[in-house]
Amino acid sequence: MELLDTMLMTPGPVHLDSEVLLAGARQLRHHRTNDFAPIYKECVELLKKFFGTTQHLYLTTSSGTGGMETAVANLFNEGETVLTVQTGVFGVRFTQICEAFRLKPVVLKCEDGKAVTIDQIDEALKKHPEISGITVTFNETSTGICNDIQAIGNFLKDKGKILIVDGVSGLGALPFKMDDWHVDVTVSASQKGFLAPPGVGMVALSDKAWKKVETVKCHGYYFDLKLYKRDQEQAIPAYPWTPAINVMFSLQEALRKIDRIGLDNCIKHYAKLAGGLRAGLKALGLKLFTEEKATSNVLTVFYAPEGIAPKEIVSEMRNKYGILIAGGQEQFAATLLRITTIGAIGERDLLGTIALLEMILKKKGYLKQTGAGINAMMDYFLKHE
Amino acid sequence: MELLDTMLMTPGPVHLDSEVLLAGARQLRHHRTNDFAPIYKECVELLKKFFGTTQHLYLTTSSGTGGMETAVANLFNEGETVLTVQTGVFGVRFTQICEAFRLKPVVLKCEDGKAVTIDQIDEALKKHPEISGITVTFNETSTGICNDIQAIGNFLKDKGKILIVDGVSGLGALPFKMDDWHVDVTVSASQKGFLAPPGVGMVALSDKAWKKVETVKCHGYYFDLKLYKRDQEQAIPAYPWTPAINVMFSLQEALRKIDRIGLDNCIKHYAKLAGGLRAGLKALGLKLFTEEKATSNVLTVFYAPEGIAPKEIVSEMRNKYGILIAGGQEQFAATLLRITTIGAIGERDLLGTIALLEMILKKKGYLKQTGAGINAMMDYFLKHE
Repeated sequence: MELLDTMLMTPGPVHLDSEVLLAGARQLRHHRTNDFAPIYKECVELLKKFFGTTQHLYLTTSSGTGGMETAVANLFNEGETVLTVQTGVFGVRFTQICEAFRLKPVVLKCEDGKAVTIDQIDEALKKHPEISGITVTFNETSTGICNDIQAIGNFLKDKGKILIVDGVSGLGALPFKMDDWHVDVTVSASQKGFLAPPGVGMVALSDKAWKKVETVKCHGYYFDLKLYKRDQEQAIPAYPWTPAINVMFSLQEALRKIDRIGLDNCIKHYAKLAGGLRAGLKALGLKLFTEEKATSNVLTVFYAPEGIAPKEIVSEMRNKYGILIAGGQEQFAATLLRITTIGAIGERDLLGTIALLEMILKKKGYLKQTGAGINAMMDYFLKHE
Repeated sequence: MELLDTMLMTPGPVHLDSEVLLAGARQLRHHRTNDFAPIYKECVELLKKFFGTTQHLYLTTSSGTGGMETAVANLFNEGETVLTVQTGVFGVRFTQICEAFRLKPVVLKCEDGKAVTIDQIDEALKKHPEISGITVTFNETSTGICNDIQAIGNFLKDKGKILIVDGVSGLGALPFKMDDWHVDVTVSASQKGFLAPPGVGMVALSDKAWKKVETVKCHGYYFDLKLYKRDQEQAIPAYPWTPAINVMFSLQEALRKIDRIGLDNCIKHYAKLAGGLRAGLKALGLKLFTEEKATSNVLTVFYAPEGIAPKEIVSEMRNKYGILIAGGQEQFAATLLRITTIGAIGERDLLGTIALLEMILKKKGYLKQTGAGINAMMDYFLKHE
């Protein structure tokens, strides 16, 4: 439906509001002058607040994967052993990055739909005492699993390991306290919970992590954090290379907006949207993929009704109605659907989405009549006003 | 002067027009759908045309330095010897990237203000027959030197070396024919001659270079071109990671505009602006830094009058009049000035710039009266209509 923008309810980049988009259309400002430096500084300061850290934070011109690479490249020397926890595609990605940097990843693959447990980590560490770092996905976009970083951080805090958290899709959308939870490195990016266009990666480090960085000879140049630190500490704080200036304009606008609304209120808003969606899906008899205690409010992952291919639902929703939801990734392509509940979206958008889903499921013969899902969602929203 | 946008006449990001800026403010489109793929494809096709290649071209979410790193990371295995030609700061950067990847860079440092010669390259190759690749800066932003890539490519064509050209600030602004000139890898970025915001890097490769890539085990993941090739060849062509979607919207708009105007006409326009600027500067008795035969039309580098610090001129021009020109980099900070003549700018902007420069130089006591520079520039423009 070309008349309207396709609304992104995918766990990739999220739907943005017009203030943030238009901020990105401002004329360029030179990145090594005081025309730009205050924007850079404000983004770093607000992000530190939203990460829950008072320590180090650097921005890269990259996607979130670039941020993940930055963490690995700076924290480990060739040959070190790293435990990579896999609860989905993005956990696997950390393993692949470690391999590309000639580290020795020890893989901890969790059961489908389940978060990692402390016991599993404990066991791996006992079996491989040489492990010097651990990567964990906070919110796993491919499976909707939210790992308990607070518990993991508390468990690891005196063990001398570096805890690296992929917070790409979780930060800004779920409660996260980097310093209180003893996280050493947190990676994120502009295009999810921080409600800005893609193009800016974020890497925050504890003092402990920074001490490790100083002992590592980074293999690579573009993501060498020592250069980022050097340039951030100049009289005019800057990136070492040319930043994605217009994305930074948008990011500043988005972070100011989050700060004005209050990060906690944004998080509550998403929790309500996700709660309403889950209530609606359950009322339609659809089964959720993720175990309840690890369910994320960023996205809801559920099984398509038997006999209906997820991609049929996705393409009808997009082509006919202008809403983009996602199917499952890789081995889940034929069974799962994913709907995101973060971005510049509200109840109105979720109500429209569940109603459209019902219409499609009725046409495909799964539902005899429409109404159960949308009514359950309305009830939920009314109860949680 | 806050009333007006500061106009960028720096050799960093260039001044953009409003169509390109506003294109970047469109609502996001998901990067793995047919909403976005045609934009990606069109950018790749137009860039191949402007690079003068029919071979391989990939886009990264990064600055130009990320593109340079991509070239080094994919073309060489640890321990290989690479000749890095230095005609300024960006030549040095290639040496540093090679060091960061544990290669053995052989440095060919050229005289201040002079381009590299074939004899110098020949001599280095004879001395170090183990050299497997050569990096050269096409247009050196720090010194205004334009190296003769055509001659270098012709000289190297049967020697079995990989010629890597940093075309970040030259492409789109100066004549360049990658295939005809036997260049193996050409790097560029969105924010200079391609008239778009920063955030997109570009790496083009010859078939010969790609064959080499296939033998290299890339140290790193984010810039691994094998993954870029895999995803570009999918049914829905894509980046392997999330691209800077809004920068791509702007880039598409800018590339279409260049194509509409005609790349050759853009190049002629910049040549005229640069010619007018040089005529004006000479009429003011100011001395150009770069030897004449290697002078670039992208930017003009000249000595500040003795006794006047470049930074005083730069800051008065910016703070009072809203035009940002640049001082020299590193060892040239106290002597050189740089003015760029590419971007969405015209004669009007150069006329304003030279007149303001005259006013400042009169106030500082270098000029007794104003008029010589602007008159020479007007004459030049009239003669070259």
